[in-house]
Amino acid sequence: MPESLRILVVHGPNLNLLGSREPEVYGPTTLAQIDSDLSARAAELGCELECFQTNHEGLLIDRVQQALGSFDGILINPAGLTHTSVALRDALAATGLPLVEVHLSNVFAREEFRHHSYISGVALGVISGLGPRGYRLGLDALVEHLRR
Amino acid sequence: MPESLRILVVHGPNLNLLGSREPEVYGPTTLAQIDSDLSARAAELGCELECFQTNHEGLLIDRVQQALGSFDGILINPAGLTHTSVALRDALAATGLPLVEVHLSNVFAREEFRHHSYISGVALGVISGLGPRGYRLGLDALVEHLRR
Amino acid sequence: MPESLRILVVHGPNLNLLGSREPEVYGPTTLAQIDSDLSARAAELGCELECFQTNHEGLLIDRVQQALGSFDGILINPAGLTHTSVALRDALAATGLPLVEVHLSNVFAREEFRHHSYISGVALGVISGLGPRGYRLGLDALVEHLRR
Amino acid sequence: MPESLRILVVHGPNLNLLGSREPEVYGPTTLAQIDSDLSARAAELGCELECFQTNHEGLLIDRVQQALGSFDGILINPAGLTHTSVALRDALAATGLPLVEVHLSNVFAREEFRHHSYISGVALGVISGLGPRGYRLGLDALVEHLRR
Amino acid sequence: MPESLRILVVHGPNLNLLGSREPEVYGPTTLAQIDSDLSARAAELGCELECFQTNHEGLLIDRVQQALGSFDGILINPAGLTHTSVALRDALAATGLPLVEVHLSNVFAREEFRHHSYISGVALGVISGLGPRGYRLGLDALVEHLRR
Amino acid sequence: MPESLRILVVHGPNLNLLGSREPEVYGPTTLAQIDSDLSARAAELGCELECFQTNHEGLLIDRVQQALGSFDGILINPAGLTHTSVALRDALAATGLPLVEVHLSNVFAREEFRHHSYISGVALGVISGLGPRGYRLGLDALVEHLRR
Amino acid sequence: MPESLRILVVHGPNLNLLGSREPEVYGPTTLAQIDSDLSARAAELGCELECFQTNHEGLLIDRVQQALGSFDGILINPAGLTHTSVALRDALAATGLPLVEVHLSNVFAREEFRHHSYISGVALGVISGLGPRGYRLGLDALVEHLRR
Amino acid sequence: MPESLRILVVHGPNLNLLGSREPEVYGPTTLAQIDSDLSARAAELGCELECFQTNHEGLLIDRVQQALGSFDGILINPAGLTHTSVALRDALAATGLPLVEVHLSNVFAREEFRHHSYISGVALGVISGLGPRGYRLGLDALVEHLRR
Amino acid sequence: MPESLRILVVHGPNLNLLGSREPEVYGPTTLAQIDSDLSARAAELGCELECFQTNHEGLLIDRVQQALGSFDGILINPAGLTHTSVALRDALAATGLPLVEVHLSNVFAREEFRHHSYISGVALGVISGLGPRGYRLGLDALVEHLRR
Amino acid sequence: MPESLRILVVHGPNLNLLGSREPEVYGPTTLAQIDSDLSARAAELGCELECFQTNHEGLLIDRVQQALGSFDGILINPAGLTHTSVALRDALAATGLPLVEVHLSNVFAREEFRHHSYISGVALGVISGLGPRGYRLGLDALVEHLRR
Amino acid sequence: MPESLRILVVHGPNLNLLGSREPEVYGPTTLAQIDSDLSARAAELGCELECFQTNHEGLLIDRVQQALGSFDGILINPAGLTHTSVALRDALAATGLPLVEVHLSNVFAREEFRHHSYISGVALGVISGLGPRGYRLGLDALVEHLRR
Amino acid sequence: MPESLRILVVHGPNLNLLGSREPEVYGPTTLAQIDSDLSARAAELGCELECFQTNHEGLLIDRVQQALGSFDGILINPAGLTHTSVALRDALAATGLPLVEVHLSNVFAREEFRHHSYISGVALGVISGLGPRGYRLGLDALVEHLRR
Repeated sequence: MPESLRILVVHGPNLNLLGSREPEVYGPTTLAQIDSDLSARAAELGCELECFQTNHEGLLIDRVQQALGSFDGILINPAGLTHTSVALRDALAATGLPLVEVHLSNVFAREEFRHHSYISGVALGVISGLGPRGYRLGLDALVEHLRR
Repeated sequence: MPESLRILVVHGPNLNLLGSREPEVYGPTTLAQIDSDLSARAAELGCELECFQTNHEGLLIDRVQQALGSFDGILINPAGLTHTSVALRDALAATGLPLVEVHLSNVFAREEFRHHSYISGVALGVISGLGPRGYRLGLDALVEHLRR
Repeated sequence: MPESLRILVVHGPNLNLLGSREPEVYGPTTLAQIDSDLSARAAELGCELECFQTNHEGLLIDRVQQALGSFDGILINPAGLTHTSVALRDALAATGLPLVEVHLSNVFAREEFRHHSYISGVALGVISGLGPRGYRLGLDALVEHLRR
Repeated sequence: MPESLRILVVHGPNLNLLGSREPEVYGPTTLAQIDSDLSARAAELGCELECFQTNHEGLLIDRVQQALGSFDGILINPAGLTHTSVALRDALAATGLPLVEVHLSNVFAREEFRHHSYISGVALGVISGLGPRGYRLGLDALVEHLRR
Repeated sequence: MPESLRILVVHGPNLNLLGSREPEVYGPTTLAQIDSDLSARAAELGCELECFQTNHEGLLIDRVQQALGSFDGILINPAGLTHTSVALRDALAATGLPLVEVHLSNVFAREEFRHHSYISGVALGVISGLGPRGYRLGLDALVEHLRR
Repeated sequence: MPESLRILVVHGPNLNLLGSREPEVYGPTTLAQIDSDLSARAAELGCELECFQTNHEGLLIDRVQQALGSFDGILINPAGLTHTSVALRDALAATGLPLVEVHLSNVFAREEFRHHSYISGVALGVISGLGPRGYRLGLDALVEHLRR
Repeated sequence: MPESLRILVVHGPNLNLLGSREPEVYGPTTLAQIDSDLSARAAELGCELECFQTNHEGLLIDRVQQALGSFDGILINPAGLTHTSVALRDALAATGLPLVEVHLSNVFAREEFRHHSYISGVALGVISGLGPRGYRLGLDALVEHLRR
Repeated sequence: MPESLRILVVHGPNLNLLGSREPEVYGPTTLAQIDSDLSARAAELGCELECFQTNHEGLLIDRVQQALGSFDGILINPAGLTHTSVALRDALAATGLPLVEVHLSNVFAREEFRHHSYISGVALGVISGLGPRGYRLGLDALVEHLRR
Repeated sequence: MPESLRILVVHGPNLNLLGSREPEVYGPTTLAQIDSDLSARAAELGCELECFQTNHEGLLIDRVQQALGSFDGILINPAGLTHTSVALRDALAATGLPLVEVHLSNVFAREEFRHHSYISGVALGVISGLGPRGYRLGLDALVEHLRR
Repeated sequence: MPESLRILVVHGPNLNLLGSREPEVYGPTTLAQIDSDLSARAAELGCELECFQTNHEGLLIDRVQQALGSFDGILINPAGLTHTSVALRDALAATGLPLVEVHLSNVFAREEFRHHSYISGVALGVISGLGPRGYRLGLDALVEHLRR
Repeated sequence: MPESLRILVVHGPNLNLLGSREPEVYGPTTLAQIDSDLSARAAELGCELECFQTNHEGLLIDRVQQALGSFDGILINPAGLTHTSVALRDALAATGLPLVEVHLSNVFAREEFRHHSYISGVALGVISGLGPRGYRLGLDALVEHLRR
Repeated sequence: MPESLRILVVHGPNLNLLGSREPEVYGPTTLAQIDSDLSARAAELGCELECFQTNHEGLLIDRVQQALGSFDGILINPAGLTHTSVALRDALAATGLPLVEVHLSNVFAREEFRHHSYISGVALGVISGLGPRGYRLGLDALVEHLRR
């Protein structure tokens, strides 16, 4: 039986609004549903999950820093911070943990300023535009990577 | 008699210092005076006002998110975050509320890096360089827009 | 009783069309209505107003030059010349008069080439996207600035 | 029998010199010959034509504005203003009329600063480098477009 | 009676789909109709025509190379290769034949990456945005150029 | 029982080499294994799959064009053409089919010239850097999207 | 005795204000004094002079066009049009006359947008920052060039 | 005996991790050791020190604002915020206190996006790449500057 | 006696035209003569040669891929693909074979768009502008490199 | 009688070749003739002159440094160093002497890389393209400036 | 007792002027004072020092090259060459010695062209804007680095 | 028997260090060996050779200038000056001699700032990355070019 992996799921600014606003961009699913769906999937995969959302860059960095020692990998949707936060990038790099970057909408088909990510340079991989299922796919990929 | 509109006034980082520092750039008026002047004007216009200042991007986003349902419009001076925060832009866009962006000094006549605003793209309009009265004018414009 | 200030209102190319074309961009108000509204407001403020529109950069420059000695401030919507006329900027700078730049639509949320203004660098302030009321607000701001 | 369409032909700065100067760039044909050729072609197509040339951006804008109501389409060679006039673009856009942009020489094979056109973004199409016949082809295209 | 000119008509990638897909961008006419219309026009002009379409850059280059000696001019719609193929430009330049570049939609009013053409620098002229009739106009211009 | 969806899997230039060369960049899995794994997954999902690899841009375009009517969605790894082929983008757009873009390595963490994709702008979503499992995840996402 | 050369002196927008405004940038000399000084110098050099100032780009172009046949050379201070007028450049190029470009202040040590000149590319030479004497030096140089 | 100066030492995001992570980039020294070393040095220099670290931009700004009146100078390592925070720059500028910017690693020899600092423009000086001793050197420089 | 090295010589698009077209750019030598000259030189050097030309990027990639196992090095003139083909670069990199890039004309002294090469980044070296002898020199260099 | 001014004339790299090479760019006059002509003019103006040419940036800087105390102004043609030497700019700025920058050919109408000058930012004025007489005009301007 | 380290101190162009010119930028201290102060500090640190200044890039490179074998580290203020000399960078890199880059004024708060340094990429660290004490701090850091 | 050609071989800054430093970049061969090898090759080719190395741009320019009349061609490795010296380019252009530019390492695969050469624009050809043999190949090419 595989070892029980621990995955930290991190949601950046405004993702708490999912399901209630701008559904034409982000879809109708709520963050609670995403987290619940991820937990179910984690159970199937035999791994533990902890989900965290905040609108504060500082809290994100605090949480990411604490992941080292407690978690084996990070699944992160940095939202608007994707394009502007070197500090978050540095925190993720400092953990040395494998991480997968997820975006609900396809950021590469939106405004020009969303085409660049400070996070991608330290990520294992990026999933963009696949909606809530992008999280689940990212979890699968992360677990598979960790189990190899 | 017109319906009582509710306007959220949001002041970004360092605006709490108004009146005490760099008066050659920002003028001698304090933030308390600005808020008081705005409240007086709001009373004349028959609308309600709530003012909020913080140096924390995360708190700004939290507050802006809560505006939906509680407020009819937003008057915002994003200060230094104007030029760097995609997350704040996303929060403002998510509310779907009309917003007016205000700058005390004329940012377009200052350093090159102040000429671009992430907020303008989701704003009804921008007022720059008219000092404290810019807030009042912005309030007038916002109320007029909402009452049409 | 305050001294009677004289304000020159300058409208750039195509603003004579206001109210008749592209109302989805510029709104239904005509230039005559804007000027009339401004005159009413000027009367309230106890100041004199002269309004001028032309599609000719050269005439704009001629008129702006003549403002020195005859006027105390300038309220200008440079329209398309905003983004292309160094000569108009030089004329405005040469008068040494305080000026407020007004745009009916929010130029910062339109095409990329409308995001830069040659005029802003010599303006007291900028009002963008507040429609016809932007003129009135600009007049208020200009008069208040002159009376301080 | 098709309705009699009215087409405004607009020639920008320096095109009055055609045939007398820089024939290696612009060819030997005069503007009068171009207008005459166009008129003949218009007669064949059963449409009316009015030709206008000026070196003044302001007069071009005045003339273009008046086209609405009087003309069904515009054939324009903006010459040097192609690359510098947002105001002319705005005037053309304001008419809402279909327009074809013509250049005698192939501007895309000349200096770098001639590769960008402010007019193209509001044009039905562009014809560049086909000499005087470019006007005739543009007229044909415009009429055909209007008759569809 | 004029000598019988031979014109090679070259259609680049995806133009075989004309009339069946994205009619809102490219119109309802099929490529067969365009070729047939061009042949009719060629007959009127007393010239011979050969039409060629492929989705393969290499085949386009092969075909263009063979034009020397067999054809007097080239009418080309390079489609997506317009913006990316130096090799096609080199092939066209190597023939030394006069060529006219045609685009069905107005590429200068579409995405930024469509505003630059590698082909224009070696073309006699460019016709953009006039739909299927752009080909016919291009043929007329090419024949007229060759007959001068 | 869900309808049997047909998915076209398209592999761009050099992907035939997978498993034999540069394993430090692309991993040890062969393309045959990827296709076989995808087929197995397709069987589980109850959908049909056809896999295609070529080093020829033209053949890719031919194949993509034929997808319309025969397939319900496209899973594509455009490899080196990602960054250079407008023609491939146009072909994909012309089909109007939902498509997912997959990259084995994380292109956003490699050379600067790999950070831009012409394909992303017409894709449903992008998966980058998750190795062979990226294809499977992409297939899952595509099928899920089509079944909604 | 040398042939009597005719030189056209052209002053662009705002130069009519010389001596009265912004003396810290442009100096205390009036345009009349400059023209008078130039006439005196012309008399010494045995050449005829005609001076022209306007704030209208169109009038500048009209005047420059008429120079051919009437004048042997042009001395021009294009002022703000230096940086924005392709049409003026085209007019100057069309005359084929040698021309010297003069700037009172050193434009290369001012704002970035004044560092580029559309006129320089068709000028014999440029004199920048030498104040009113720059005109005289330019006249000397032009006459000497014409007499060689 | 020199007056007792008060220096605020500010450490930005992720610097709390010093000594435990990425020692190949940032070295083995912990932040506590740096602060302790700085305090010892401060004692030698006869000045008082207060050290502060946070991952929150907002808290950094709050703390910097409070420095005015309580401190005579600021020693700051803005870490990842160096490259992205206009708000922090504004806070530092608002204090009007002399400040020295320190980076442990040589940011100018790392990724391109680390070459620009928003802080440098308002700093007395910058020390980059000298490891923990950079703080001590910065303290010496700041004190020497304040005592002149 | 040295081991018999096998070298693949690859000629990109339009090089089949050598000797017949644009001799002022590419010289009078035919590709057959270049290949024959290279074969003679190869015989002297005791190595085997295979020459290949195509106008098809896909065929170039196919051929380059097959080089692994069959050849010891590659001599390539990518012609127009130099500046546009990431796929060809990837194919060359995938072989892991040493390669020398040759250009007949000096691409660095031609149009700006020819100054960048996608191939140079994976090449042992580059020879530009030395005409047909550049191939021979490249062969010498490649063989010498392989024999060290 | 005016005080005897001392002017240092500095010629940069390759100007020793004047009159012997590239006369189509730089003209037939030798440097000795230019210096002799300048001396004659200096005598007329009642000022002293010292001329210096070197191909060594270091010697130029040495010489410029020594000018302070010995000379009242500098006339300099920095030649190729114009576009590349910050050190020469710094030396000139350090003298605090008024300086005029001269170029024989019109650098603004040559290659793009000649359009920027590090020297202009610290110069009184620039004379470009007037050939050897540019030096004389520059001397006149410098002397006149110094005598005001 | 620590081994006696040998440090080469290199001063670039115009630093010989220190103390006599532009004191508002570079301060009142002379280079002799800086060298003397450095020698005193070196004596305290038990290391040997050799100081060298020149305005000649070539002599700087000669001297830097000779450092290998004679010195253990380099302290350099490249002055104006910082921003323009790849050759100096190459010389420094060739020695393989640790080096610290010093600037008296804060180059990052001056003109844009001073923000980039070719030297930083091969330096251990950079000290900018701390005046003469920057040298002493740099010496301390260099010695400390060498003694670890 | 062919005429005895005279070739000047010029080595730029730091090439005197060859063989002793950074062999992983520049290889183990010394400059003396390169010169000796070149002399041997020159003897075979029946031409005379003179070799020159300096770290001084000024001496390089002096030497290059003297080549006219004494030499028939130039073989140059400008080293670090390749990317920064317009003055060296001008000197080379002034001689009017054919020149070949050589780089030991492949500059196009190194740092971005080494991808541009001021010399290439006036060179017959460029050889990059072929190590010491690049010189010999360049000599062969130059002699062959001169003998045609």
